[in-house]
Amino acid sequence: MAKKQNNTKLRIIPLGGVDEIGKNLTVIEYGDDMLVVDCGSIFPREDLYGIDLVIPDISYLERNIDKVKAFLITHGHEDHIGALPYVLPRVNAPVYCTRLTRALIEYKLKEHKFDRAVINTVYPRDKVKIGCFEVEFIKTNHSIAGAVALAIHTPVGTIVHTGDFKVDYTPVDGEVIDLAKFADLGNKGVLLLMADSTNVEREGMTMSERSVGKALERYFLEAEGRRIIVATFASNVHRIQQIVDHAVACNRKVCFLGRSMENIATIACELGELVIPSDMWVDPERVDSIPKDKLVVITTGSQGEPMSGLARMANDEHSRIRLGDQDTVILSATPIPGNERMVSRVINNLFRKGVIVIYEALAEVHVSGHARKEELKLIHSLTKPKYFMPVHGEYRHLVQHARLAQSMDMPKSNTFIPELGYALEIDEHGASMVGGIPADAVMIDGLGVGDVGNIVLRDRRLLSQDGIIIVCVTFDGLTGDLLSGPELISRGFVYVRESEELMEEARMVVSDYILSLSGDNHTDWNFVKNGIRSRLKDFVYSRTKRSPMILPIVIEV
Amino acid sequence: MAKKQNNTKLRIIPLGGVDEIGKNLTVIEYGDDMLVVDCGSIFPREDLYGIDLVIPDISYLERNIDKVKAFLITHGHEDHIGALPYVLPRVNAPVYCTRLTRALIEYKLKEHKFDRAVINTVYPRDKVKIGCFEVEFIKTNHSIAGAVALAIHTPVGTIVHTGDFKVDYTPVDGEVIDLAKFADLGNKGVLLLMADSTNVEREGMTMSERSVGKALERYFLEAEGRRIIVATFASNVHRIQQIVDHAVACNRKVCFLGRSMENIATIACELGELVIPSDMWVDPERVDSIPKDKLVVITTGSQGEPMSGLARMANDEHSRIRLGDQDTVILSATPIPGNERMVSRVINNLFRKGVIVIYEALAEVHVSGHARKEELKLIHSLTKPKYFMPVHGEYRHLVQHARLAQSMDMPKSNTFIPELGYALEIDEHGASMVGGIPADAVMIDGLGVGDVGNIVLRDRRLLSQDGIIIVCVTFDGLTGDLLSGPELISRGFVYVRESEELMEEARMVVSDYILSLSGDNHTDWNFVKNGIRSRLKDFVYSRTKRSPMILPIVIEV
Repeated sequence: MAKKQNNTKLRIIPLGGVDEIGKNLTVIEYGDDMLVVDCGSIFPREDLYGIDLVIPDISYLERNIDKVKAFLITHGHEDHIGALPYVLPRVNAPVYCTRLTRALIEYKLKEHKFDRAVINTVYPRDKVKIGCFEVEFIKTNHSIAGAVALAIHTPVGTIVHTGDFKVDYTPVDGEVIDLAKFADLGNKGVLLLMADSTNVEREGMTMSERSVGKALERYFLEAEGRRIIVATFASNVHRIQQIVDHAVACNRKVCFLGRSMENIATIACELGELVIPSDMWVDPERVDSIPKDKLVVITTGSQGEPMSGLARMANDEHSRIRLGDQDTVILSATPIPGNERMVSRVINNLFRKGVIVIYEALAEVHVSGHARKEELKLIHSLTKPKYFMPVHGEYRHLVQHARLAQSMDMPKSNTFIPELGYALEIDEHGASMVGGIPADAVMIDGLGVGDVGNIVLRDRRLLSQDGIIIVCVTFDGLTGDLLSGPELISRGFVYVRESEELMEEARMVVSDYILSLSGDNHTDWNFVKNGIRSRLKDFVYSRTKRSPMILPIVIEV
Repeated sequence: MAKKQNNTKLRIIPLGGVDEIGKNLTVIEYGDDMLVVDCGSIFPREDLYGIDLVIPDISYLERNIDKVKAFLITHGHEDHIGALPYVLPRVNAPVYCTRLTRALIEYKLKEHKFDRAVINTVYPRDKVKIGCFEVEFIKTNHSIAGAVALAIHTPVGTIVHTGDFKVDYTPVDGEVIDLAKFADLGNKGVLLLMADSTNVEREGMTMSERSVGKALERYFLEAEGRRIIVATFASNVHRIQQIVDHAVACNRKVCFLGRSMENIATIACELGELVIPSDMWVDPERVDSIPKDKLVVITTGSQGEPMSGLARMANDEHSRIRLGDQDTVILSATPIPGNERMVSRVINNLFRKGVIVIYEALAEVHVSGHARKEELKLIHSLTKPKYFMPVHGEYRHLVQHARLAQSMDMPKSNTFIPELGYALEIDEHGASMVGGIPADAVMIDGLGVGDVGNIVLRDRRLLSQDGIIIVCVTFDGLTGDLLSGPELISRGFVYVRESEELMEEARMVVSDYILSLSGDNHTDWNFVKNGIRSRLKDFVYSRTKRSPMILPIVIEV
């Protein structure tokens, strides 16, 4: 371990991933060295109109660009890697991650045409010296292959960061989370534990991934003579391995449909993370040539996403496949909060075609990738940390995880509920929280990163509610005479052909107002615009109880 | 029973409430007589921008206005009464319903200033002759008091319509669903059963409402010394009765907060459906004068609705009450699909204040009002219908309910999956489905009923995604000379102050195009507008990957 600098504090700064589930990014800072743990994105909430993606604010990294020594990526889910294409072009520090994570990052960077990344592959139990830190990578179980926790040895002490994890005693790849390493770290002394809080509300332990395999086996047998389509997350390689294994056992070939599913399956096979007998893998072009009872299709769309493979199949819009009463569809996933209605729509459309649908409400065809209470207690118990900071959760999850630590006799004063933009500062005297670091959400819309702010969003929300009325009037700049208009044009307000009378009355309201103008105010165009806006607003509201945006345009010629 | 007319078929026409959960409305038609069962509304899906409410299309009723003899309302939930204020002014037939339902309807009609309704109060086991029909009202259990099923005796046979129901052997009001009446009808012969499908996916039986009381009792004891706030549905009078009873048992006064909660509690007390010792009921103005450990607040907002009592408390925006670490909040409800994120936001905000929050993920403080599989089987078994039509459910629920009937040995050909706008026609020869009746969703926006159509919604969606750019140009009508512009104004596109350069370039694109115009096309304003639109669209997309609505306005003076 590096020598300790005087008067320097260890700082842990979450810029994303606390008080939310998504866009994980935490800075670990000591002296002139910074590590960044994860670099994720989050899908926009429904009130972020037109926004494609949200990433953390990295202005703190940009301001300290020379200090940033590395990005440590715990696994390849979007909420851990999704911001890299936007962040690396600005702060291009080396990335450390395991093989599958690397492949997923490279695939993503290629899509964004960024080829300057420096990526280092690491393996569990590897130790890497970075600046004043030494980082160990620790095998964990999660709903994606290649997930690791981190032990970050700092001059002040050791931080253990679990990443997303669960404890799976019978994992599909045979490799159980490295509990011995957590125990070893605990014995040597852990200064701070940061742990996944997603499932802290749930009692007991999350089921093993292998239990899904058992359920799939049963449904595959029941579907004898029928075609089977399974929708799941493309990145859940172990789930896909189980689907493939059961397909092969039933003498069915497998076909991957959906761009991300095809790509990730190919990548995972190249890495050996996914094993498929080559004669059992059918190209998408041949999907229709295989007898139904000899095929399993694996596709995207388990969240009902409108452009996904399954949604297009449910709408008869898929270019390769038509579903009907000879098909069984298994949705091997749980709807993420907010996606319930989309998933429901897909299921209903599949029922309409006579498809047999196996889904959450009816069957155990999915397990979570996150630790429940008893698993969390195990990790707390093994690592015996001095301080604890819950991460990866909404506010209530963080509080409940802190209470869990307290129930295991950690003093309340040693647990810290993180907040975005607040640093946890630790030195030999103790630990405390200090604020003031920018950590807002950065919104991405098309090519724009951060150029859509609250004013633009407010306008989009207003426009979406009752539309817009544009009022055009043209005056003679010299005489002040009205040359043309008022002309009213609306979009998203009423269907104009059926509301001609209303629009004509509205025009008269504006016209009367303009005719009433005289004297000094006549050519004060802001005064005129405000007058038009307020009169038209009142008229429209009184007649329709709607409040469209009103945009007066005054032209002087 | 009335005499049978020759060659006349009994027609059952769902205009709402099938393939959806909401806006229930079914027409029962024979000869010159029509009954309407329920008249509900539904909250708009997230893609219906700016729409306040959706109701069924009643043009079929309007076209047959002289035939419409009555509205039969099974209970007072919005999805059964919410369309009455819009429908009764157009088709003002008498309404039949139980006491609490009547009070809720009257309250609603008063808000809409409609005073011409003719409402008849009925009681369970009442029989009413209406046209060629005789209607019996049958006591059921549901998550609101006063729910009834219907037996409609027609010239062709008896229809049993369950309404929303569950089987509660220990209901709070002591009155179990009238199973004997269902059995009696079954023995005499039921032609058609129409039954609630909401919970058909769930095994077993729904828990008794009284089980919630037991859980509440425990949490009330745990909250000793603290103030208790319970959020639930205002119309769930039996839930509220249990909350009141446990409050009184703990020597706590009760205070209702939230307009609908206060109003419905008052109405229910007047009817005797809710019993509160008068000295235990505290006015909202006095809520802050009662010691915290002597008070239970009952409020709206269990769905996280932004304007509700609980959401305002969670945001410190409530005029009467501030919550803190001396408060326990119980959310006695399950989020309706689509509301999960709003509920989550409220819970997180309550945690932030140090409130102890008891909610679904942690506790059994809610039960459903809808029958599960075993309860449905009981009703099928008692009524022994010849035909079966599942109602109140999304498509998949309807299919699964039909399969449940088939599993009890009903021939598949006797089960009918209803579709909006299709009539089930029954006579002595058999039954079949016939289409062609208008049954679209009618959207309500402000005062407008049905004036927002697909074009307006499409525009609102476009505006919400990337905003709008308006391009103004003024030409001399005689010479064709450009007098003013092009001027570009945007809303919801980019924050203009930070994108001046982009907007100036965009202006130049339009300007260059206008300067390039010559000859015949010069004053073909549609040609000019299309040219502006396509050039600006391409430029904006290439620079931003966004597609704002582009609205060229050409003014001729």
